[in-house]
Amino acid sequence: MTAAPSLALLTDLYQLTMAFGYWKLRRSEQAAVFHLFFRKAPFAGGYAVAAGLGPAIDFLQAFRFDDSDLEYLATLTGNDDRPLFDAAFLDYLRHLRLTCDIDAMPEGTVAFAQQPLVRVRGPILQCQLLETALLNILNFQTLIATKASRICGAAQGEPVLEFGLRRAQGVDGGLAASRAAYIGGCAATSNVLAGKRFGIPVKGTHAHSWVMSFDDETAAFDGYAEAMPNNCVFLVDTYDTLEGVRKAVEVGQRLRARGHELVGIRLDSGDLAYLSIEARKLLDAGGFPDAAIVASNDLDEHIIASLKAQGAKIALWGVGTRLATAYDQPALGGVYKLGAIRGADGQWRPKLKLSEQAVKTTIPGVLQVRRFEDASGLVGDMIYDEARGIDGRDVIVDAKDGARRKKIPAGATGADLLAPVMRGGRLEERFAAGGPETIHTARTRAQQELGRLHPTVRRLLNPHEHPVGIDVGLHELRDQMVREMRWDFED
Amino acid sequence: MTAAPSLALLTDLYQLTMAFGYWKLRRSEQAAVFHLFFRKAPFAGGYAVAAGLGPAIDFLQAFRFDDSDLEYLATLTGNDDRPLFDAAFLDYLRHLRLTCDIDAMPEGTVAFAQQPLVRVRGPILQCQLLETALLNILNFQTLIATKASRICGAAQGEPVLEFGLRRAQGVDGGLAASRAAYIGGCAATSNVLAGKRFGIPVKGTHAHSWVMSFDDETAAFDGYAEAMPNNCVFLVDTYDTLEGVRKAVEVGQRLRARGHELVGIRLDSGDLAYLSIEARKLLDAGGFPDAAIVASNDLDEHIIASLKAQGAKIALWGVGTRLATAYDQPALGGVYKLGAIRGADGQWRPKLKLSEQAVKTTIPGVLQVRRFEDASGLVGDMIYDEARGIDGRDVIVDAKDGARRKKIPAGATGADLLAPVMRGGRLEERFAAGGPETIHTARTRAQQELGRLHPTVRRLLNPHEHPVGIDVGLHELRDQMVREMRWDFED
Repeated sequence: MTAAPSLALLTDLYQLTMAFGYWKLRRSEQAAVFHLFFRKAPFAGGYAVAAGLGPAIDFLQAFRFDDSDLEYLATLTGNDDRPLFDAAFLDYLRHLRLTCDIDAMPEGTVAFAQQPLVRVRGPILQCQLLETALLNILNFQTLIATKASRICGAAQGEPVLEFGLRRAQGVDGGLAASRAAYIGGCAATSNVLAGKRFGIPVKGTHAHSWVMSFDDETAAFDGYAEAMPNNCVFLVDTYDTLEGVRKAVEVGQRLRARGHELVGIRLDSGDLAYLSIEARKLLDAGGFPDAAIVASNDLDEHIIASLKAQGAKIALWGVGTRLATAYDQPALGGVYKLGAIRGADGQWRPKLKLSEQAVKTTIPGVLQVRRFEDASGLVGDMIYDEARGIDGRDVIVDAKDGARRKKIPAGATGADLLAPVMRGGRLEERFAAGGPETIHTARTRAQQELGRLHPTVRRLLNPHEHPVGIDVGLHELRDQMVREMRWDFED
Repeated sequence: MTAAPSLALLTDLYQLTMAFGYWKLRRSEQAAVFHLFFRKAPFAGGYAVAAGLGPAIDFLQAFRFDDSDLEYLATLTGNDDRPLFDAAFLDYLRHLRLTCDIDAMPEGTVAFAQQPLVRVRGPILQCQLLETALLNILNFQTLIATKASRICGAAQGEPVLEFGLRRAQGVDGGLAASRAAYIGGCAATSNVLAGKRFGIPVKGTHAHSWVMSFDDETAAFDGYAEAMPNNCVFLVDTYDTLEGVRKAVEVGQRLRARGHELVGIRLDSGDLAYLSIEARKLLDAGGFPDAAIVASNDLDEHIIASLKAQGAKIALWGVGTRLATAYDQPALGGVYKLGAIRGADGQWRPKLKLSEQAVKTTIPGVLQVRRFEDASGLVGDMIYDEARGIDGRDVIVDAKDGARRKKIPAGATGADLLAPVMRGGRLEERFAAGGPETIHTARTRAQQELGRLHPTVRRLLNPHEHPVGIDVGLHELRDQMVREMRWDFED
């Protein structure tokens, strides 16, 4: 990876005004810990697939304010038309280099609500300056990797091709979506730049416009077969779909006579169950039992599941808009919340944000997640405070309902999910370019982790809830903090 | 604008395989015309605001294949494991420079379904290579500019601040959203990089984490006021909202004693109608009648309209996720369709894509859009074929229903909406950097054009339909082409 340009200004202005406040009040170096997490799995599902850490690391490594950034900040003014920022603060930013400790779930890890995907620990000023970009990158890629995993699950192992670039939300919306979709399980993308940058396989053949530019459909298929005989997937629905299939068979026979093999056909409209079943018969009868039927046209996990249930004869699934924009839920509501502040005595003081909605009340501490398994599979995840350690009772408590508890079985073994990414602003070997963490590793990890979940947790509708809770000791502390802070009804 | 890097590979692979096909069949220079348009206004609304042409021009100007692009393409293989592309074709791409004519609606133009936002005319190979990137850029920015115009309309002239970066779809999803939201009418953004790059005003003060990092809320407000006395908008809902307002008043009084004025307070949770009305009373009673109440928290045009109807005392609206991701419809279904091909005789041959859905049947020709107005306001838009000219009957026909027609009133004057952007691959002066087309021009244009629409066309729900139709002569040609091509029911 070549050095990325710094995107230090890719942030909300309030991060910089708060940074200025901390600096002005001589609190910029006070240690704090923030957690990035989501409160509810997307798509009404039971899990998410963490993604985006790679690009987040690129952002962190490039993080610095350059002269043009500081010149720009110097032009901003307040309600008295005087500068917002002191020149001395801008000079502080000029020399600022990250010294944070960052821990994160490696890409492809299966994550649940309330679990930190990323933990940032260090000077509070730095923690704030990283918030917005980390949320932007992690929220979106986690959303898309999760969507892809659902779609690939519905396709039951058949390859899913990501075709979303033209409807994606901007250039990087398209590139990042291709990357995350691959981590989530897609086999290939149509996006050539994503193929080049990330090493994702690319696929594509021709569009309706190719067919329309010829006087007739057979001439269009023959022309394509002449030009690119080793990549023939004919789009058969420009005019009459089944007539198109018959022509594809005819051209496929001429192609075979020239020593090449028809890869398949693509259906992009109409009733995909009916047309694929009828097309399959025509291809088989024409001597092409191995020619694949590719389907596209506003597919998502629910439509794919329905087509599979109907016995559609589709071997490859092209999914565009609904994957690349996560159409039914285009944002993961990930947040980045203060967990603790280190006092003058060097001790961490846990911090809690109350909310009228219990699900929005944060979990205080310096959090880590331990995933337990035994011979029966995954048995539960515990969110605990590293500074306190795990309570000897080995019990997890539902973060939303203190009455729901589970004892971790005696023989279960646990592993922590947040791995060190940066220490004192220096990248750990494991996450360096050329190291073991690639999108291919991430994709394999996602497949393995999804495979370890109980299948009912992966269900598309009303999934079974994987047991995730707070360490009972931490729960008791949190409960006490909530009771001490509890306000009256608004009046 | 400094030279952007080339994004020639920001395309679907099938554009390159078709390009190869045209080249191989010696048809690469055959002239074609393609139109980029949407079939249905987004958000069940009555119009869209065109946006994205500026970044599209950056893409076009930078368009070229560099060595690393060609090296990558040389690695791609077909089903016989041999290269997809001939070396001679890659060499052709190396020397390829755009020679197209491009016409487009300037940014901020109000557009309706079926109208080309962009028309690309030139060698068919080039037209195809531009398709995906143009769709990606125009689809998203038009979507967001339209969403912003709806939200700003609901706010009835009160400033709307775009706060969406943390939930936007990737880095450019955030930057492009900020840009397009400004064109659509937003007053400012929280996104500092968008402020720097595009000259959009930026706004921001502090978050809940600022308050939580102090021992109590008053100390947090006092600390902020000490650091940045000219930018005080206190976020009052970290604990008890109305208590927070009382503390803001108290700190505002100390601020005033030091010669600074409280800008306002921000509400980010709870019942915004109730809380804003009560907070207004507290601010007024405390001597701050001019302090503004800013509201945020999952706002969109419908919630803003409801809050206005309830008499909420909100003066500035912070809108994030639902604007930056166009939450309720995260993709504009824009398409790019072949309109005509130039034959060996130099004449344009109109081309038509039929569909079982009438709305998907394309309009053939080399299209232009003429907008008519008279003393009563806008009277209708005509889509016509520049190569044929306008039929003397001056009648427009609904593209979906030939029985719906309208005569353009005799005294109406018309103006064409597609302006020349490139001729033979060279950018027209008007659209050059430093020229008159800036995002500020675009924003003003949008406001003027929206103001000229009948208010019922801007209505959020079930809007009145602005009369848009096809020139009657072109309609008759299209109708004849459809009848000649009509297929049987699928069997």
